[in-house]
Amino acid sequence: MAVRALWFERGTLHLIDQRLLPLRLKVLHLRRLGDVADAIRSMAVRGAPAIGVAAAYGMALGAAEGRWTPDRAAAALRGTRPTAVDLFVGIEAVRAEWAAGNDPVAAAEAYRELVVGECRRVGEVGAPLFRGGPKVLTHCNAGALATVEWGTALAPLRVAHERGSDLFVWVDETRPLLQGSRLTAWELGQERIRHAVIADNAAGHYMRAGEVDSVIVGADRIARNGDFANKIGTYEKAVVARENGIPFFVAAPWSTFDAERADGRAIPVEERSPGEVLRFGGVRAAPRSSTARNPAFDVTPARYVRAFVTPDGLVRPRDLPTRLRARASRRKRPASKIP
Amino acid sequence: MAVRALWFERGTLHLIDQRLLPLRLKVLHLRRLGDVADAIRSMAVRGAPAIGVAAAYGMALGAAEGRWTPDRAAAALRGTRPTAVDLFVGIEAVRAEWAAGNDPVAAAEAYRELVVGECRRVGEVGAPLFRGGPKVLTHCNAGALATVEWGTALAPLRVAHERGSDLFVWVDETRPLLQGSRLTAWELGQERIRHAVIADNAAGHYMRAGEVDSVIVGADRIARNGDFANKIGTYEKAVVARENGIPFFVAAPWSTFDAERADGRAIPVEERSPGEVLRFGGVRAAPRSSTARNPAFDVTPARYVRAFVTPDGLVRPRDLPTRLRARASRRKRPASKIP
Repeated sequence: MAVRALWFERGTLHLIDQRLLPLRLKVLHLRRLGDVADAIRSMAVRGAPAIGVAAAYGMALGAAEGRWTPDRAAAALRGTRPTAVDLFVGIEAVRAEWAAGNDPVAAAEAYRELVVGECRRVGEVGAPLFRGGPKVLTHCNAGALATVEWGTALAPLRVAHERGSDLFVWVDETRPLLQGSRLTAWELGQERIRHAVIADNAAGHYMRAGEVDSVIVGADRIARNGDFANKIGTYEKAVVARENGIPFFVAAPWSTFDAERADGRAIPVEERSPGEVLRFGGVRAAPRSSTARNPAFDVTPARYVRAFVTPDGLVRPRDLPTRLRARASRRKRPASKIP
Repeated sequence: MAVRALWFERGTLHLIDQRLLPLRLKVLHLRRLGDVADAIRSMAVRGAPAIGVAAAYGMALGAAEGRWTPDRAAAALRGTRPTAVDLFVGIEAVRAEWAAGNDPVAAAEAYRELVVGECRRVGEVGAPLFRGGPKVLTHCNAGALATVEWGTALAPLRVAHERGSDLFVWVDETRPLLQGSRLTAWELGQERIRHAVIADNAAGHYMRAGEVDSVIVGADRIARNGDFANKIGTYEKAVVARENGIPFFVAAPWSTFDAERADGRAIPVEERSPGEVLRFGGVRAAPRSSTARNPAFDVTPARYVRAFVTPDGLVRPRDLPTRLRARASRRKRPASKIP
């Protein structure tokens, strides 16, 4: 793999500062739980699966500091970002082992392996959807940077490309933080996958013009009925895709599915600073007297989704509750810990 | 009026450089046709009605230079931007008078008066739609800056606000050139109308949340059946508005209606430089190896429009052909000159 969002060596979490890409590749070296919490809150690391793994290592660093209990460490990391369920799953994976007297670093490593393995399988499951060189649209970044390795939405495109599909990707720039133009374009460039960045506003134009064969995105939280939260703007793309008869796919590891949540209504949507909208590259874009609203996510109803690309196959929204029940009967989920 | 996009005095066209707003208010002083053509092409002046008036004055300046024929002057200005029909209407309004031996400056002044008067009437016709302090979403800038005075989409909001409606405006920032956050927010601030800037991606989120009561936009060209071209992203907003049962209005003077065009299929859509998408505020946002596509407009089918707000009343799309035929029978349009 060309790109890894983070790695852990000798008591230090090394993490690419995604706020500076693609102009600067800077790696942060984090040795304390508080540093990891700051990196998640400030979006130095972002993407639901990646923040789950970062938080798992944050728990392990907290255990080594000696001044945290498992529960207090978990509470400190849970407060960083509200929407992605992976954060809570990653924290809990380590908290439970730590509280049981097991090695927190080993628990974090195991969680990382689980997520990376599932993303690789998402790639293999989804790759056949992108044979024959289609034109695919994606929103935000659901690549290796968002998931440690492989990606979710980008994993099937990577595998299809490796197998010879000459696909082309429309990259929504994804305002306000431009994860599309900064991160997805960078990852696709590393792998020499053909692509063009577009303003988010242009996606519908190309859908209507017949220039988009399918849409694939990641998710931050998927409810039991298939409603899902993802980066702001996803809902619009899903509506316009259906209006134009274009299939819409959501790729995710199991850590992103929240089986305890019946539907999307109560998924907490983070609102971030107005400054992310009002400024860019240090330049004020709006009058000083104007303010902004900045919801970081939106919730898309399940009816817009053709299928979820999971580590264990394509799952239609109507089949999702059954699949999640079957998984839950095999292992307990830390439901009470997830807001 | 607090804001005027341009004015003509003693042989000079004075024009606010809209590329620098809201951080800098700079006025360009143009004395030659070529200067006006450059200002239109570079978007120092933009907005369909405003570029029509600027081009009319450009014709008058060309006549004073002594080295242009009416037809050659018209051809030079027609080449600047392809989508807005007002450009061709404004040029022709002066060309015909100049060719007939009449005063080109007087013809330009008359065209300006016509457009300003129609925008004022658009405001009066549309104001009753926005009584009672609704939440309204608009895209791009269809204000005074886009129309010389009053605006098209903003004119009804202005008049409703003057009459006591405590309305609130969601301002799509309108990437790539941010006419929403730079220009619409500035105009609303000047008139103390409550508003918040949002990333274009957030419009659907607020529509679905019940936070948008109606949408109003301007247009660059409206075909006989009601299909219309407007700033890129308009189509997505129209689709998502209808999906949520939110009425969608298009406000325009008669110069924006292209009665010779049956529908939206052949409206020319300008594609501008990739640099507008790849950079902002001098900062490169995407990897150097990535490119972009940058359509400046999209075409929205008439079925998404509740009504056109015209100088002579609200017109439903299905009634538009009849209305345009009635107008055409009263005055000839220079159809052959409009690409």
